[in-house]
Amino acid sequence: MATDQQKFFMRQAIKLALDNVQNGKGGPFGAVIVKDDQIIASGANSVTRTNDPTAHAEVMAIRAACEQLQSFQLSDCELYTSCEPCPMCLGAIYWARPKKVYFAATKVDAANINFDDQFIYDEIALPHADRQIPFEPLLQDEAIAVFEAWTDSTQKVPY
Amino acid sequence: MATDQQKFFMRQAIKLALDNVQNGKGGPFGAVIVKDDQIIASGANSVTRTNDPTAHAEVMAIRAACEQLQSFQLSDCELYTSCEPCPMCLGAIYWARPKKVYFAATKVDAANINFDDQFIYDEIALPHADRQIPFEPLLQDEAIAVFEAWTDSTQKVPY
Repeated sequence: MATDQQKFFMRQAIKLALDNVQNGKGGPFGAVIVKDDQIIASGANSVTRTNDPTAHAEVMAIRAACEQLQSFQLSDCELYTSCEPCPMCLGAIYWARPKKVYFAATKVDAANINFDDQFIYDEIALPHADRQIPFEPLLQDEAIAVFEAWTDSTQKVPY
Repeated sequence: MATDQQKFFMRQAIKLALDNVQNGKGGPFGAVIVKDDQIIASGANSVTRTNDPTAHAEVMAIRAACEQLQSFQLSDCELYTSCEPCPMCLGAIYWARPKKVYFAATKVDAANINFDDQFIYDEIALPHADRQIPFEPLLQDEAIAVFEAWTDSTQKVPY
């Protein structure tokens, strides 16, 4: 069973989504990031307002939390998002590594209002050449040479 | 067969990756975005330097190109990336909608130097509760109410 505190945090994320709609600032999506029972960062969908297709609520919140913590990892943090993350945000979550994610609406609910993440999930599973945006390999060997330079580098910050 | 121009653009992306390694600025990944046979934006992995786990080369290049074009869509653009995109970048690509993607190294090559995207691809396919970062549903109905407000809104910018 969800605790009152968990519900409080999720309602903050949902409130950001509603504020976004009511003020015409962007899509109906909000997110907050919690550490030690405190909200440390939040985000709302800002794609159309900022001309940034990556400015989903989760990405905005992750960026803000990392800036707040001066870290590229969100260990010991929890993400509350008003909607199940799209593949981009899911990827961002795995790179940031919070310990848990709570979501309210599902990707089916999002598809019902024409935010169709399922299309991307389907494309991910297809071979490169069969995707609606074609992916074509080119100069693999020259890029691998750079990977070898990375492996040999003594000044890298691994992550 | 790839044209000399396509190879030129990819070598610019690979050069950004090499520059990143040689100058200790971040992971060995670079990307450029081309429109009308011109590079309009570029990006290199900046995760550790900027404390932003979303600052992959492709995301950086997409953001810069969208700012350049003052648009959240990259119609008629091509993306050249020195490595096959991770799930986050793949999602960002689908939201930005360039017409084609060229990549050099593969995700297998990336895994060989410990950038293991495959882990995220595997997690995407799992049920919420079985993921290494658990995903838990909460207050779905309250978020759906915001989606309904979005549907009814007369001031929204659909996308």
